Formats: sequence, C-alpha cells, structure tokens
Amino acid sequence: MSQDWKSDVTKFPRFEGVRTFMRLPYDPEPKGVDVVILGAPFDTTATFRTGARFGPEAVRRISSLLRPAHAYHAVRPTDVLKIVDGGDIPVIPGNTLRSYGYITDVIHSWVNEGAIPITLGGDHGIALAELRALAQVHGPLALIQFDAHLDTWDEYWEEKYTHGTPFRRALEEGLLDPLRSTQIGIRGTVYDPTDIEEGRSLGFEVLTAEKVREIGLEQTIRTAIERAGSAKTFVSFDVDFLDPAYAPGTGTPEIGGFTTFEAQQLLRKLYPLDFVGFDIVEVLPAFDPTETTALAGATVAFEFLSLVASGRKGA
Amino acid sequence: MSQDWKSDVTKFPRFEGVRTFMRLPYDPEPKGVDVVILGAPFDTTATFRTGARFGPEAVRRISSLLRPAHAYHAVRPTDVLKIVDGGDIPVIPGNTLRSYGYITDVIHSWVNEGAIPITLGGDHGIALAELRALAQVHGPLALIQFDAHLDTWDEYWEEKYTHGTPFRRALEEGLLDPLRSTQIGIRGTVYDPTDIEEGRSLGFEVLTAEKVREIGLEQTIRTAIERAGSAKTFVSFDVDFLDPAYAPGTGTPEIGGFTTFEAQQLLRKLYPLDFVGFDIVEVLPAFDPTETTALAGATVAFEFLSLVASGRKGA
Amino acid sequence: MSQDWKSDVTKFPRFEGVRTFMRLPYDPEPKGVDVVILGAPFDTTATFRTGARFGPEAVRRISSLLRPAHAYHAVRPTDVLKIVDGGDIPVIPGNTLRSYGYITDVIHSWVNEGAIPITLGGDHGIALAELRALAQVHGPLALIQFDAHLDTWDEYWEEKYTHGTPFRRALEEGLLDPLRSTQIGIRGTVYDPTDIEEGRSLGFEVLTAEKVREIGLEQTIRTAIERAGSAKTFVSFDVDFLDPAYAPGTGTPEIGGFTTFEAQQLLRKLYPLDFVGFDIVEVLPAFDPTETTALAGATVAFEFLSLVASGRKGA
Amino acid sequence: MSQDWKSDVTKFPRFEGVRTFMRLPYDPEPKGVDVVILGAPFDTTATFRTGARFGPEAVRRISSLLRPAHAYHAVRPTDVLKIVDGGDIPVIPGNTLRSYGYITDVIHSWVNEGAIPITLGGDHGIALAELRALAQVHGPLALIQFDAHLDTWDEYWEEKYTHGTPFRRALEEGLLDPLRSTQIGIRGTVYDPTDIEEGRSLGFEVLTAEKVREIGLEQTIRTAIERAGSAKTFVSFDVDFLDPAYAPGTGTPEIGGFTTFEAQQLLRKLYPLDFVGFDIVEVLPAFDPTETTALAGATVAFEFLSLVASGRKGA
Amino acid sequence: MSQDWKSDVTKFPRFEGVRTFMRLPYDPEPKGVDVVILGAPFDTTATFRTGARFGPEAVRRISSLLRPAHAYHAVRPTDVLKIVDGGDIPVIPGNTLRSYGYITDVIHSWVNEGAIPITLGGDHGIALAELRALAQVHGPLALIQFDAHLDTWDEYWEEKYTHGTPFRRALEEGLLDPLRSTQIGIRGTVYDPTDIEEGRSLGFEVLTAEKVREIGLEQTIRTAIERAGSAKTFVSFDVDFLDPAYAPGTGTPEIGGFTTFEAQQLLRKLYPLDFVGFDIVEVLPAFDPTETTALAGATVAFEFLSLVASGRKGA
Amino acid sequence: MSQDWKSDVTKFPRFEGVRTFMRLPYDPEPKGVDVVILGAPFDTTATFRTGARFGPEAVRRISSLLRPAHAYHAVRPTDVLKIVDGGDIPVIPGNTLRSYGYITDVIHSWVNEGAIPITLGGDHGIALAELRALAQVHGPLALIQFDAHLDTWDEYWEEKYTHGTPFRRALEEGLLDPLRSTQIGIRGTVYDPTDIEEGRSLGFEVLTAEKVREIGLEQTIRTAIERAGSAKTFVSFDVDFLDPAYAPGTGTPEIGGFTTFEAQQLLRKLYPLDFVGFDIVEVLPAFDPTETTALAGATVAFEFLSLVASGRKGA
Repeated sequence: MSQDWKSDVTKFPRFEGVRTFMRLPYDPEPKGVDVVILGAPFDTTATFRTGARFGPEAVRRISSLLRPAHAYHAVRPTDVLKIVDGGDIPVIPGNTLRSYGYITDVIHSWVNEGAIPITLGGDHGIALAELRALAQVHGPLALIQFDAHLDTWDEYWEEKYTHGTPFRRALEEGLLDPLRSTQIGIRGTVYDPTDIEEGRSLGFEVLTAEKVREIGLEQTIRTAIERAGSAKTFVSFDVDFLDPAYAPGTGTPEIGGFTTFEAQQLLRKLYPLDFVGFDIVEVLPAFDPTETTALAGATVAFEFLSLVASGRKGA
Repeated sequence: MSQDWKSDVTKFPRFEGVRTFMRLPYDPEPKGVDVVILGAPFDTTATFRTGARFGPEAVRRISSLLRPAHAYHAVRPTDVLKIVDGGDIPVIPGNTLRSYGYITDVIHSWVNEGAIPITLGGDHGIALAELRALAQVHGPLALIQFDAHLDTWDEYWEEKYTHGTPFRRALEEGLLDPLRSTQIGIRGTVYDPTDIEEGRSLGFEVLTAEKVREIGLEQTIRTAIERAGSAKTFVSFDVDFLDPAYAPGTGTPEIGGFTTFEAQQLLRKLYPLDFVGFDIVEVLPAFDPTETTALAGATVAFEFLSLVASGRKGA
Repeated sequence: MSQDWKSDVTKFPRFEGVRTFMRLPYDPEPKGVDVVILGAPFDTTATFRTGARFGPEAVRRISSLLRPAHAYHAVRPTDVLKIVDGGDIPVIPGNTLRSYGYITDVIHSWVNEGAIPITLGGDHGIALAELRALAQVHGPLALIQFDAHLDTWDEYWEEKYTHGTPFRRALEEGLLDPLRSTQIGIRGTVYDPTDIEEGRSLGFEVLTAEKVREIGLEQTIRTAIERAGSAKTFVSFDVDFLDPAYAPGTGTPEIGGFTTFEAQQLLRKLYPLDFVGFDIVEVLPAFDPTETTALAGATVAFEFLSLVASGRKGA
Repeated sequence: MSQDWKSDVTKFPRFEGVRTFMRLPYDPEPKGVDVVILGAPFDTTATFRTGARFGPEAVRRISSLLRPAHAYHAVRPTDVLKIVDGGDIPVIPGNTLRSYGYITDVIHSWVNEGAIPITLGGDHGIALAELRALAQVHGPLALIQFDAHLDTWDEYWEEKYTHGTPFRRALEEGLLDPLRSTQIGIRGTVYDPTDIEEGRSLGFEVLTAEKVREIGLEQTIRTAIERAGSAKTFVSFDVDFLDPAYAPGTGTPEIGGFTTFEAQQLLRKLYPLDFVGFDIVEVLPAFDPTETTALAGATVAFEFLSLVASGRKGA
Repeated sequence: MSQDWKSDVTKFPRFEGVRTFMRLPYDPEPKGVDVVILGAPFDTTATFRTGARFGPEAVRRISSLLRPAHAYHAVRPTDVLKIVDGGDIPVIPGNTLRSYGYITDVIHSWVNEGAIPITLGGDHGIALAELRALAQVHGPLALIQFDAHLDTWDEYWEEKYTHGTPFRRALEEGLLDPLRSTQIGIRGTVYDPTDIEEGRSLGFEVLTAEKVREIGLEQTIRTAIERAGSAKTFVSFDVDFLDPAYAPGTGTPEIGGFTTFEAQQLLRKLYPLDFVGFDIVEVLPAFDPTETTALAGATVAFEFLSLVASGRKGA
Repeated sequence: MSQDWKSDVTKFPRFEGVRTFMRLPYDPEPKGVDVVILGAPFDTTATFRTGARFGPEAVRRISSLLRPAHAYHAVRPTDVLKIVDGGDIPVIPGNTLRSYGYITDVIHSWVNEGAIPITLGGDHGIALAELRALAQVHGPLALIQFDAHLDTWDEYWEEKYTHGTPFRRALEEGLLDPLRSTQIGIRGTVYDPTDIEEGRSLGFEVLTAEKVREIGLEQTIRTAIERAGSAKTFVSFDVDFLDPAYAPGTGTPEIGGFTTFEAQQLLRKLYPLDFVGFDIVEVLPAFDPTETTALAGATVAFEFLSLVASGRKGA
C-alpha cells in the first residue's frame, strides 16, 4: 500500500495520522508556498489564566475533523493554493524578548518567500512579533481585530510586553496604520470608564459589542473593509471575541459575546481585502474539556484559508 | 407504603428510581401502546468521535428532570397517550448488519402493533434500520431531518453503511419519498464545493443553516410542512443540528449552529403532520460533562411526545 | 512594600490574594457601607441537583477577573459607593428554618444600617429569608425576578420550604406586592398545563421566555419598570434564566433560555428603580468545569453594583 | 425475538438496557428474595460536599460493566440466590426525619420478608435508618464499618442527625452492640486530639489506618471477625475508606487511604459471618468524572453479593 | 535559524512542534530503522466503552513530556537505535476484517525490513493483526501479556473478532506458542467461576493479580522470562493492567489493579529476552481528563524502547 | 450574633466564609506570629504545563475541609502557635526577577519578625526566592526536598531561572549547605543517563524513588534527619513527589511515584529538626478536576503546621 493514502480523506478516516493542521503536509522549510500554518506556543504574557502554549496542539488536533472544502466560498483551498503546516516556532517560556525574536525571525523567513502566515497562538502578545515580521516586508499594515479587549493598554504592572498591550507597542513602532484599522467586539468590564475613548484616541475605529449589535453585521464589516481599503491587511482573531458559551477555553473570557455563526458571517465578507497575515489566538485547552473552543479556533483558521483561496480563485 | 408513589412526581423527588425515560413504566412487550421510547445504543458507524452507545443511558438519566406537561401545547402527554419505555434494542458492536437487523425487527414489532417509536441513538446510522421498519408498514415516508450534515454521501472509505450515508441507502431502498422530504440546518466544511448540490439532486429540499437564517424559522417550517403534506412522516433530529455551545457532546460537531430555542420553535410548529416515528441521535456523553447535550436530547424527545399528544388531544 | 498594593489592580495581577468579591475589603461588621456582598451557602432546599453551597466561593473566585469600572454606566462603583464583602452568612445544612433565621438576621443587621445587600446563593430558597429581612425594614417590596421557573409552587412533597416555593411563601407573609412584581423568562416543562396561569393568579406579571421574545427586550424591561414604579425593589436573578449553554452549572437547567448579552441588556435598563436588595442564586460549581456559570454570576453581581452606582452617581 | 435475551450477558452487550444494578430484574415488591439492592438517594445530612443523591444512579450505571461471577469465591451469586433490584427508597430532600422514616419502612418491609438489603447511598446518615429497620427484626447488631471517619460525633452545629453522627445515635437507640463492632480505616485531621479515644470509649474497636498498616490486613480482619462472632452483622462501607486516588468522588475525602485491592482483600475474608445487611455510601458522582468511584462502589456491592452467595453455596 | 533545533530538547521547550512520539522524526517509509512507533487507531471491537481510536493521538501528545534517556537502563535509546514515528496505520471504523488487513500489511512491511514495531492502540483486538504480521516473519511467538483480562474468550455475542478474543484466535492460527507465554495481572469479575481455568487450559501460564501479589514481582517476571526463554517474544501491555486510579482512561477498567511503579519494575526486568514487537493498548482519552492514562501509556512505550536499547547497548 | 462564630468549626459548616487557609485569620502585617501561610502565585518558570498561579487559591479552597487537630502529633496547632494567613505575595507574570524580588522581600519581612513561612506555590522556581529570604536571616540552610526531579539543572534553553534550576542557583549563591541536604523521590525520564550522578556531584544526598523503596521509609527519613542534624532546615515539597494517581494536577507529572500515605509517614518523622521554612509547590488546578491534588497539597501544609506545633508543644 502506498503511503499516499493520507492525501485522500475519502479513503481513510480523518482521525488518522500525526496531527498537522487539517492533515496538511508538514514542511518547516520556508519556501515555495502560498500559505503556511505556524504554531506560536507562547503564553508568558497572559495576565489571568495561562496555558495557551497548548493552543496550537489543540487546534491541530481537532482540525482533523474539518473537511477540505468551503461551501460558501465554493472552493477547496488546496486546489488553488500551496499550503503547508510549518510546525511550531521556537519560543522560550518566561523570556518574552527572546521569544518575540524567534517569532519575528521565523515568520519573516516565510513572508520573505512570499507566504501568507496563519499563526496559531499562544496568547495575544505574539501579535507584536508577528506584526514586526510583516511590516518589515510590507510596511505599516491595516489591522482588523476581532476581540473582547482593545489590547492597547500602555502597560500592566509596569510591564510593556503583555497580551494586553501588543497593539499599543505596534503603533509606537509604526507597524500599523491606525486610520486603516478596526477593532470589533470590544466589551467587558474596564479599568476606567474612559478606557474605550482612550483606545479610539489612538486612531483605531473601535466597534464595541454593543455598537456591532446596533449597526448590524453588514455595516460592521463594511466599516472594516472601507477603512482597510487597498492596504496590506492583517486579521487578528482573539477567540474571546466569541462568548464563553462558544469558547470557554480562553484566558480572559467576557460574557455578552458573539456566536460562531456571527463570526463566520463577519469573516466571510472580508474577501476583497489584500491579506498578508492572520492569527487565531488565546485558545487555552485546559479550560476546554469538550474541545468546543479548539474547534472554533480551527474553523476560524479554515475561514482564513478559504478567504485567501477565494481571492486567488477569482484571480 | 404502596409502590405506586412513583407515578406522582409531586410526592417524591424526580431523581428517584431506576432511570426509564421520564420515569415512564418500563415495558418491553410491544403491544397496546401509542408511543414507545426505545434506545438503540449503536455507534459502530460513527466516522469521527465514537461513544454514542451511552446516549440512551444519558438521555434517560437527565430526563428525570423533565416535568410531565408541555406549556406550549397545553398537554400532559400521558393524559392522552399510553406511553412506555421499551428499553434498549439489542445491538452488536462492530457488526452493523446484525445490529440493523435487530433494530428493524424490534421497531417493526412495535409499529406493527400501532405504536409510534421515538428512538434514542446511537449514531445516525441507525436511521436506515428505523426507516426499514417503518416503511415496511407505512410505505415510503416523508422525512424531516434536522442536522448539520446531509448524511446522503454514497460511502465512506468504500463502506456503504456509515452514519454519513443512511438517507442515500434509504432512497435506494425506496423507503423515503424525497419530494416530500426536507433537510434543515446543513452547514460546515464539505468534501467538495458541490456536495450540497449533489444532495439536492437526490430530490430532497435542502435548507442550509444560511438559508434558514435568510428565510426565517416560520418559512423554514412551512416549507417542510408543505412538502410533507399528508404523507406519513418521520422526524430525525441529529443533535449536531444544535451549535456545539448547546450540544458539545456529539461525534461530529460543527460551529455556526442553532440554539435550543430555535429548535423548539421549529419543532412546535410541526404539529399538523401525520407522524409515524421520530429519533434523536448522536448524543455522546463522554464529551458532555455538564449534561447539557443530554438535556437537549431529552427535551427534544419530550417535544416529540408532546407533538403527538397535541395532535391526539385535538382529535 | 506597603500592603496597600492590593487596592490597585494596575500594579499587580488580578489573580492575587484571598478571594473576596472583586478583591473588595472583607468586613463582617454591618455598619457604614452602601452595598454589602454576602454569601449564603445554603442548598438544602434544592429539588434536583444540589451543591450550590459552593456558589459563593466560585463567584468570588472568578470575580477576580472583573475590572473595576462599567463602560455602559460609565462608573467605577467604588468611586461613588462604599462597598465591602461581608463574608458568608452562617447556615446549617439540612436545617432550613435555622438557616433562614441566620440569613434573615444577618441581612437585617446590614439593611438596618442602611446597606443594600447583594446576596450570592445558594439555592433560590434563600430568597424568602432575604425578603423577610428587607420587608422588615422597607415593607412589602416590588420583585423583579429573572428565572426559568416561577418558584411559586405551594409545596414539593408536602414540604413548604423549598427552592420552588419562596415567592408563594413571601406573598403569604406579605413581603411582596405582587401588583408591582414581574417574573421574566419563565419556560420549561411544567407539572400541569395550567401552571403558568396559576402563577399569574397570584398577581404577578409573568413574562414567559416566549413572551419576552415576542415583545422584545425593550418592552419587557419597560413592563417591569412601570409595574415597580417608585416601590422599593428587590431584584432576584436565578442563573437558570440563562440558557444551559451560558450557565451549565446550575441545579435545574432548562433549554431554550437567554444569552448573557440579553441578560445584560435587560439589567442595564433597570437603573431608575429604587433598589433595596439583589441576589444571584443557583450557581452550582460542580457542573461548571469551565467556570462559565460562575463568571456569568459574578458579572451579574457587578451589573447590580453598577446599577446602584449609576443611580448614586447622578444624585 | 424473545425478550429473554437480557438475561444472558454473553448474547448482547452489557451496556444494554435500563440501568438496574448489574441488569438484575427490577422488582419493588418486597417478597420472596434473598438479597435486594436498594437505592437511598439522600444527601441532606452531608457536612461538606453534597450530591450523593445521584450515587445510586451512578453505581447502577457502571455496574453494567460487571460480569456475573466472582472468581475468588468461585460463585455466580444469581446461581445460589434470588436477587432483585428493588429500586430507590423514597426520600425527601431537606427533611431528614421523614426520609429516615421512609428508609426504615421500606428496608423493614424487605427484611421482614427475609431479604438481606444492600443499600446504595446517599450519604452515611442513612445508616441510622437502615439500622433501625434491621434491629427491629434482628435485635442489636454487630457493625463492621470501613470508613475514614468514626461518624460517632455527638452533633454538628447542634444538629443530631448528620452523616457524622449515625453510629452515636444508633448506640443511644440500642441498635448496635459496640463490643461486637469494629471501625476500620479511621484517619484524617480531627477536631480534637482525643477524638479517637472518645470513639473508643463508646465501646467500638477502632482500627485506625495507621493501625491497620501496622498489624496488617490479616490481623485486621481477624479482629473484626472475632468481635462479631456469631452476631447478626451489618457491614457499612463508606467509599472514603478508599484513598481519593481510588475514590475521588466523595463528600469528605481524606488522603492516606486504602487501595481497592486492600479493600477487596479485607472484604473477601469476612465470609464466615452472619450478615443481615450491607451498605455502600458516599459515592458522589459530580466529583467522579472518570467513574472510578462509582466502579469501586459497584464492585464493593458485588463483593457483598458474593459474600452472601459464598456462605449460601456452602450451606 | 536552522530547523535542526528540534532535535535538541535542551534548546527549546519539549511542548514544541507537531506531535510525533517523543518528537521523533516522522517517517512512514518502512526501511532502515531499528524500531518504529506506529498508531493503530482502531476501536470497533471494544465491548464496553469505546473511543480508543484517539489513543495514539493522546499518547503522542503527552509523550512530549518525556526526556530522552532512561536512568535505570542507563541508556538514551536514540544513541543506540534508529527510531522513527511511522504515523498511523490506516483503519476502517466498523470493518474489522479490512482494518486487520491494513494493520497486518503495514506492520509486516516494517518487520520485513528488520524493524521492531511498538504499536499504540486502539483496542486490544488489534493484537491479532499484529501477531499475524510478526508470525509471518518470525514464526510462532512467545507472548508476555500484562492485562486485567485473559482476552481468550471464544466469542462475544457470536462474534469471533473482538477485543476479548484476540489471543484465542492467535492460538487457533498458530501465531503463538502458549507454552512459552504468560498472562500477568488477570483479575475482575468473570462470566463463570471456571473462566481462568479455561484460560489455563489453552496452555498459557496465567498469573492472576492475586497470584502476582502472592509470589511477588521478582518471581512473576522470572516465570515469564523462563517460559519465553530464547523464543521471539511479543509484549502486549493493556493499560487496564494498571488500577483505574493510575489509568482511568480505558474501556473496561477493573479495580484492584497495579501501580505504575509495579509495572515499571516488571518491565525493566524483561531485558534479556529476544523482543520482536510490543504494543500498548486500550488508552481511551475521553475518560482521561488529567492525561494520567496517556502519560502511563507513553512511559510504558518508552520502557519498551529502553528495553530494546538496553539489549542493543550491551551487544 | 457575634462575628466570632467563625473561629469555632463545631458551630457552623467548614465550607463557610472567605477562603483563607483553614479559615485562619487573614493578616498581611508581618509581626507577632509563629507561622505564616503565604501564597506565591507565580508560574512563569514552568517548563511544560503552566497554571500553578491558581495553586494557592485551590489549596486555600479545599483546606476548609481540614479539621483543626492532628491525631498523630496529638496537637491542635492553633493551641500552641499563633498562625495567620498572610495572603498572597505580589508577583509579576512574565517577569521572574521582579517576582523573585517581591517574594524575597515579603518572606524576609516575616522571617525577620520571627515567623516561619509556609509558602504555597506557584511553580518550584519560587524556592530560590524563598531561600534568599531565609538565608539572609539564618545563613546557609539544610534542605529536605521531596520531588520527582532534582531541579538542579544548570539551565533550560539558556535560561538560568526556571523551575528546573532553583537549587543549583541556591548552591551557587551559598544559600544551601549541600552536605546537610537530601533530595527524596527522584525518578522519571532524564536528559542524560548521568543526570543523577551530576546531581550528587553537587553534594546533595540523592535518594531516588527506587532507592527509597529499597531502603524503606524509615531509613530514608533517618538519612535526611542525620544529614540535617542541628542545622536550620527548609522543607520543600513538590507535589509531583506524589504519583499522578494521587496528584494529577501538576506541571510535570512522573509515573512511578509515591502515595499520600507514604508522604505522611515521611513527613511525620521529621519532627526533631529545626525548621525555618516550608513550601508546597506545583499544584496546578486546571488538571485537578476532583480537587485531589489540592487536598494533598493542603494536607501536606497541615503536616508542616503540625510538625512545628509538635516541636513547640514539647518545649
């Protein structure tokens, strides 16, 4: 029997095999691919629950449940894109600066070869390292951030690098164009009633959960698309954008969140943009006994893949 | 103290007693009843997670929480119907054909005596065996299927009898009238972008999750009712119709699904039809630590009971 | 280093310290405060699952995740109110009358000093003891009850004091003004089709879950506010008002319930009323492996705090 | 197909069917049997974690895993004894006296007809009610108690009827002969250093966990047998006799306990005694996610059955 | 940064990377290796709980915790052996004969190239397919089986291929030399008091759990070694050999089992034998919330690796 | 009712109240006490699973189950010692050096006032900070370490401060006297076969798990006592000393470990030493669904308290 059987999900069960993302080939060499899936198992900058270092493992694991085609976009991503699982980026628990260095280096090596990275976190602090790699190649980026939290605080406990501060740092470092960026789904208790205004003062469009409900999903996504325009765009999906009913396994859950159906509606409408990178972060398996969060994370990553494929298909 | 105390839930706690469905009398002899609850603890044809063999146990267990009357239909089913828990149908793990034989035989013995069966799965593969028993008595049936998946694939890994294929087999065997049948809630990743069209080509009305949201619950159920018309009707409820937030304990969960409230709204409107059988399948307790899925399954079974009672009440 | 560091959540992690509610100071002496958080770890009157005695512990635990300010009400409660965690009220497992005595005594001692109590249950049976304390000071109260169940049954198994009967007892004792009271979210299987009508016959406005969906959240809350008018008002939030997807950890879950977003929308609109007390009950940690229910309970308690603060701020 | 298939575990899977203990026939009528299994789902007198009301359900559920014969005693109990599952005894949550009344009445009705009851708790407080029923027929009994705790405290919080006091009450009521009784496995933190001496002063032989390790299992069981002698003997097995590693699902676990192998060694040697009743108590399923405790409880109950059968076989 | 970093566990965390067994290289081509790790995710023949199809995934996952050297054997297996993770063998859920065919074929392809396979189950039914592959090359084998159950029943429910029958089938097919084989740890309830004698009548040495305790670990292992002698030897480790306290995640747990320390003591003494294959089966992750069973399974597989390495080292 | 009721566990349930350790008074001011319980919720230096930051919370929570007296030592610690719960030491997730600074400062402030600290971790990395505080007052200490791992590696991934290196750092800083120190229970896979010899070369007595079984518990503890002699002694208990069956909730579990009974036997014999500090570390609640590990941790802390009390009692 040839070993090629693994490429055909109709021949053998999906739960077979070493767990790469969606049973994609594992290839850590950064060359010749359109999209690369990378794990960034780093959780040192989490401020409440920690353990997202096992997020990439959990997402890869349940991703074996996903079938290879997307009905809405009418595309099988591997038909139009060369995609690999590049494995995990090395990180150093407890040493944020070294870890950011590795993350930036590895992602840069892929981006430099023309690949679009989809990074599986890890906590949201990794976004800064991702943006450094991307901006090095593409210049300042538009950001579309799905999240319960702004993540633009200046510091936590006098620490500059935490999962609550990456986008403030990215602004300071010139990695983002705030006027082209949108934050969607912000909610929850705050440190100060003015927190959200302070977020807006950085230049971002902040669409709180209440605002999204008020203007509707259509208008929400239209806002994000219009702001991004033709800019190179990075999409960051913090799984706590979803309500804890849909994503209990995360570090700083907030009630009053969104359903996975709403998330899919929002993501599917983003297709005309010029994407250069994505991440799905804050999946924390130790609080996910039914794998519901990991499945949501894996499916969001597949939505990303299909967005890129959808754009490429039409090309 | 008489042993009759168990019939009165106001006298003693509901968590008392050997677990039959809703504390109904256990009676495995197929005669003289209107509705019979039957377990079919078979999970050999599941393609991803397995363990639904413990579904009937879990549904019976949590069903002790249910009170005996239905507010919407304004009926206490046991007031208008003779209902028993007929226990479990014997099955043979690993031997699908023998198990289908037993399931068909036992259900047929009840249907032949005029009973409407409500079968607790087990994986969805049992539906073929149920339909064989029902069609033997009633001829080709209308199907109303609540499900994330079509379950009309031709085969998995060259296997004809799996939980993804029962309705294709049923069509081939002439057990269903596809022009009177409706599949509701289809969603999720697919093997090929044309999968859903292929499903439609078999004759079924396929209302995807997106379509249901587009046309609304009212129009959805009206479509199903109009197609079924006066035909003998079988209702099959795969618990993965519900979103994993509402039903994590299942074998092939798909995000973007429905709430239990939506499910209840849909089910309650079905009452004018001529029901001959029901099932609720794919409850998998090992992924249901909070019993949320089992409770949903038990309540759906109670909605079925109340649908029948509601029709009988008016008669 | 001074020990005052704990009062500033920006200096050290929120997961630090002995778990009082939201890291508030612990002070069991009933004097000089505006609002007191009290635990009532009593679960003897639960009729199905039991274990809500660990509810106060779980709510306090996860409340460390909450930040100190409320964005919608634009207030940081501790800025405008003196708030303490008064610890747990002593109770006697298995002895309802002695426990009710302690609960009434302790709450009365606080109310008498001008404090508004927010009580963390425990099962819903504690509401009777709370109402006795409050009515002793304020006279008959308006009730706004968020709940899947009426809790106005006359008895269970010939027992008068259960978690299904507190509001019937309260009516009999003259503690409530039913014409100013509203029950919101009632649903689920019933003992008799007339159960809800019987509830209404006591004088309460009963807005079933179906009704709430029909008239909308706005009209729902307007109804409750108009009925309460200028009366002293008690708000009782049974966590099973929420759907089991949002609050699996509870004693008598009912499918078809509300989201946390809906709950927040309802609660936030209540602000003009004259609140004298609140409770959040039926959090049962043993069925809450992901702490989702406890987080919902803690956030509801924070909504209460913010409601009071919002009213006080404008004063 | 005949309905007799259920009596032959070699014909169909053990996980089939409505869950009686070991698939025994369910028969609530107290006559003509040698041994009856009864559930006593009462947990109101538990002093820490509660929820043992679901103990009988969990033990019956996992008991389907047990095969019908005992290798050590070389007996298949149903070959030499008529055994039924009598279902659950009615109890009233929150009302200890009424519940004790029902427990005593139902057990007495069986004992009076010559049956030996094996009662599944429930918390240990039910032992008093059991002993009342047994002593009414047999006079004062020898007790062999496997337990981490003495359960001979005088009161808890001024309450006389708790799961920490049944054997003190039983002594006061003359139901036990302390000079023929042995308590085995006592350990854990105490209220006062003299607690164990006080236990001994009541007349019981108290073999602490340390003592059992010192004298060995052989001498332990010889002591219990010699004290019991020819007296009618009641064996009470609190599942917390086992270490939490072997029985995590219980209300008041104590580290430093016994293995299931040790428990089996002890129980198997008891056979020459004149048993009149048994119980296995304090199985608390909400803390037993892997069913390990329930399996231990079910197997202990099967050891009881086999003890009786072994004695009868030789007769 | 070179991609070779993964080979050095001192440079980056062990939780990095796609999960192969112990981070070994993944290579599905059967040539030029000394030992191959293979998954056989087949669970169709399980008679009670099912779900061991996720066993290989779970064992690989937690195996990242293992460090590369063995202190007792004083060896780092990769220093003396070429070892790869060959991935999973294709299987067909529900079709035992096809699955056995694949398992035999794939294992044979490795054995034929001189590799020693260590197979991760899956349920114990796979052992028959393994033995067919091994005996084809090596002739009849000595078996050393660590197990709570004999697995030599003739059939279950008239089915010949189940996880309770592989060694009976293997004897009938001439794959085993029973006079050189030993079954260790047998215990639990039985179908008939003569079950164990019947097992012995097939020629195996059966050392029950009681016998092992009686003669001690030293004598136990000496017996197995002496019987095996110079024969080609297969070691099969059913994780239910361990007590449920040590391995709750399995399909047919039996109380009264062994500790992991005892298992290690037994395995480490086997080194002089001529091993041709190993398996570790019946790890069922859905009942293993703390990964304790998976860790035990992974460490047992590492003991196997070290046994082979220890023999090779001395050569 | 006076608020003093909480000091008497016989008056009200142990599960009452804000969770301090064993319901001790909370007092963060370092003066006038004999023993202080401190939490150090720091887990940044963990190398595999993380989340021990919630260890102090979990240990305090379940400690409410402990009764106030110790039977073996025949002492109620609060009778002979003034003991408080000093709350948590501030830490900064992700910043090891700042956190060590706080830990050392706070512990030093207590030790300086004559208190013996019992610190609840957190990961084992905190031991270095503890030893710095203690050695500053007492000079180089004797160490008795119960642990599966040596924790004397030089570095992980070029990082000097991890939970695998504290005792190497402590040696380098002159905080320990290795000739008076003993490491007990070492086991598990290693990086190199010479790891343990390298540990010994630092001067410690290393008693591996195998060695402890060989020489017995008596000789083990005698060795530790003789080496410590009259030196000021620090006892560090890593909960992974226990087998994962007894302590699944930990970061780097190793099979083949010790029972809680064995741990208690070892600890109780240590009493003649001159203790200056203790810790119990690596309790990781996210992997402890049944609270078994937390209970073990709390009971070990109580063994420490009782050791000190036992010495003081005799004085």
